[in-house]
Amino acid sequence: MNKIEKVQRWLADNDQDIALISDPKTIQYLTTFYSDPAERVLMLVVFKESDPFLFGPALETEAIKDTGWTSPVYGYLDHENPWKMIADHIKAKNTNHTKFAIEKAQLSVERLESLQQLFPTSDFSANLTPFIEQMRLIKSNDEIEKLKVAGKWDDFALQKGFEAVQAGKTEDQVAAELQYALMQNGIMELSFPSLVQSAAHAAEPHGATSEKKIENNKLVLFDLGTVWQGYISDASRTIAVGKPDEKSMDIYKVCLEAQLTAQDAVKPGITAEELDKIARDVIAKAGYGAYFIHRLGHGMGMSEHEFPSIMAGNKMELQPGMCFSIEPGIYIPNVAGVRIEDCVHVTETGCEPFTHTTKELRYVEN
Amino acid sequence: MNKIEKVQRWLADNDQDIALISDPKTIQYLTTFYSDPAERVLMLVVFKESDPFLFGPALETEAIKDTGWTSPVYGYLDHENPWKMIADHIKAKNTNHTKFAIEKAQLSVERLESLQQLFPTSDFSANLTPFIEQMRLIKSNDEIEKLKVAGKWDDFALQKGFEAVQAGKTEDQVAAELQYALMQNGIMELSFPSLVQSAAHAAEPHGATSEKKIENNKLVLFDLGTVWQGYISDASRTIAVGKPDEKSMDIYKVCLEAQLTAQDAVKPGITAEELDKIARDVIAKAGYGAYFIHRLGHGMGMSEHEFPSIMAGNKMELQPGMCFSIEPGIYIPNVAGVRIEDCVHVTETGCEPFTHTTKELRYVEN
Repeated sequence: MNKIEKVQRWLADNDQDIALISDPKTIQYLTTFYSDPAERVLMLVVFKESDPFLFGPALETEAIKDTGWTSPVYGYLDHENPWKMIADHIKAKNTNHTKFAIEKAQLSVERLESLQQLFPTSDFSANLTPFIEQMRLIKSNDEIEKLKVAGKWDDFALQKGFEAVQAGKTEDQVAAELQYALMQNGIMELSFPSLVQSAAHAAEPHGATSEKKIENNKLVLFDLGTVWQGYISDASRTIAVGKPDEKSMDIYKVCLEAQLTAQDAVKPGITAEELDKIARDVIAKAGYGAYFIHRLGHGMGMSEHEFPSIMAGNKMELQPGMCFSIEPGIYIPNVAGVRIEDCVHVTETGCEPFTHTTKELRYVEN
Repeated sequence: MNKIEKVQRWLADNDQDIALISDPKTIQYLTTFYSDPAERVLMLVVFKESDPFLFGPALETEAIKDTGWTSPVYGYLDHENPWKMIADHIKAKNTNHTKFAIEKAQLSVERLESLQQLFPTSDFSANLTPFIEQMRLIKSNDEIEKLKVAGKWDDFALQKGFEAVQAGKTEDQVAAELQYALMQNGIMELSFPSLVQSAAHAAEPHGATSEKKIENNKLVLFDLGTVWQGYISDASRTIAVGKPDEKSMDIYKVCLEAQLTAQDAVKPGITAEELDKIARDVIAKAGYGAYFIHRLGHGMGMSEHEFPSIMAGNKMELQPGMCFSIEPGIYIPNVAGVRIEDCVHVTETGCEPFTHTTKELRYVEN
């Protein structure tokens, strides 16, 4: 059963007629076609018992056909009303359209209202999002192979970043060097802007790379990712320039122990919250519990925002094929920040990381 | 009256109690703080008659305070329920919360349902989106100054791209060079991935830069943009490598005439659809009407997806301070594609472009 057929099966099992799929990442997952339509409309319409169709900007229809999509594709021009056209294509199928399932996590209220106006007697209460998330939760071997390639490019980028580090250079300059090295190798897409943060700046876990100069005798934090055929990588490493102070060295040691202990504990059957607690306990025992202010990890695959979320309260049992990050961090304001992260896939007996850059503290001589 | 006060005035005028602002770009517009929270929750809550608050990930609260935001900021940890916390903060204000206005173009159905569960007797039917779009439609002098700086970096990037073009290099390599030149100058953020397309590849207007090699005696299309303090640039140029065939040269000439004629016609009072038609008529008269398959332009400012949309059917009259692209294109499948684009701001008597790279056809010798 292919993925579209799984959606059709879900419609039948849940007494729904039509799935309206609007999340570009879900469309990519189901069809291989990816485009960010921004304010334009891209929608995959799956019927319970007949062929689906793709609807999008006229600009995109050739690119859709190039992916090998053989069901109908309908394009619209900028001055046309896409909602009216989608409704007409649905009505032309002469199929039942009483119950629509939508991606509630992605569809905007405005777009839902446009659809409701065109189908005033239909029901839009069914949510497809949990089913799609469940489908995407367990990665196939083919997906894992792509994630491995993205991981290799992440290792490459980290290496290039380490080579570029020097006290006196700005964080931006180091990020520029590693991104240029990727682009020279044809890796044009990143999963997010590469993060390079030196010294106390790294204690702002969601700060950005800046014009700040890298200082001697401080830590430098890297967090970066690439995209390979729609699948992402994501890894963090923290390295030392010169000889950082004892406090910095201590939080590195504790963070590393938390990361290694958690990664070693992954196996089928352990829950997400148990794994989070294993890392959190190591950090709390060392007295830094108040400085680890985010979950241990996030699911990943086509994006870094998938399930399972590795955090307190999530009792989901880990299973082979699940992919997520293990990224403890210790952020002491105005002092230093450390984060160490691999993304892994769960195997029958444990897990395998997608990145292999050493986690032992690396020293860069100034 | 500052921008938050304008939202409060709107609430009073529209018999609403509270504005729930969830679009990160709107939050940036109103507060100067920007972050893409991805699946996390970031929300600005504006009350009709008392101080607003910002709610977001605990990771972000320090960065919010650093922007000079002086009203309350509340953070949440990953394992906490942000919706419950937002509701508690609203209820703690002891203010009326019967009528909420939401950003319907951005808020997802799932998030609206979360809110409705917490305020089951409240009304969420008012849409803030049109008001926000209207606020953002006319740019202030300060905004125009930022757009000018972004435009200058776009001119710089085009120049670097032209210098990098050579038959035999890939499109990706040229994009890498111009992006590296920007990063070396501290311009780390692009408004979208830079587009470089050679020969017939440029006839796919929403295609991507690829591993395709640039060919001699063909046109090369550039479309790129940078971000300066939250404001974007966006410009397209098409240049010649060697001596392109007559057909390519002809569509360049026609496209240029359409672009110049339209840009020259901009003035307060002309409608968006009239402007679109001026460019479209030039192209249609030359016999290429079927190959200009998108609107003439889009509004721009903090993103390239704002109003006014320059297209058939839009009777909006242009006014000083409106900013948009003028980008006719002619795309002949399997032959060539041309697009020429400046973004402009409307002045009292006409318009001024943000980019100044010449639009006369530039030849690169191979």
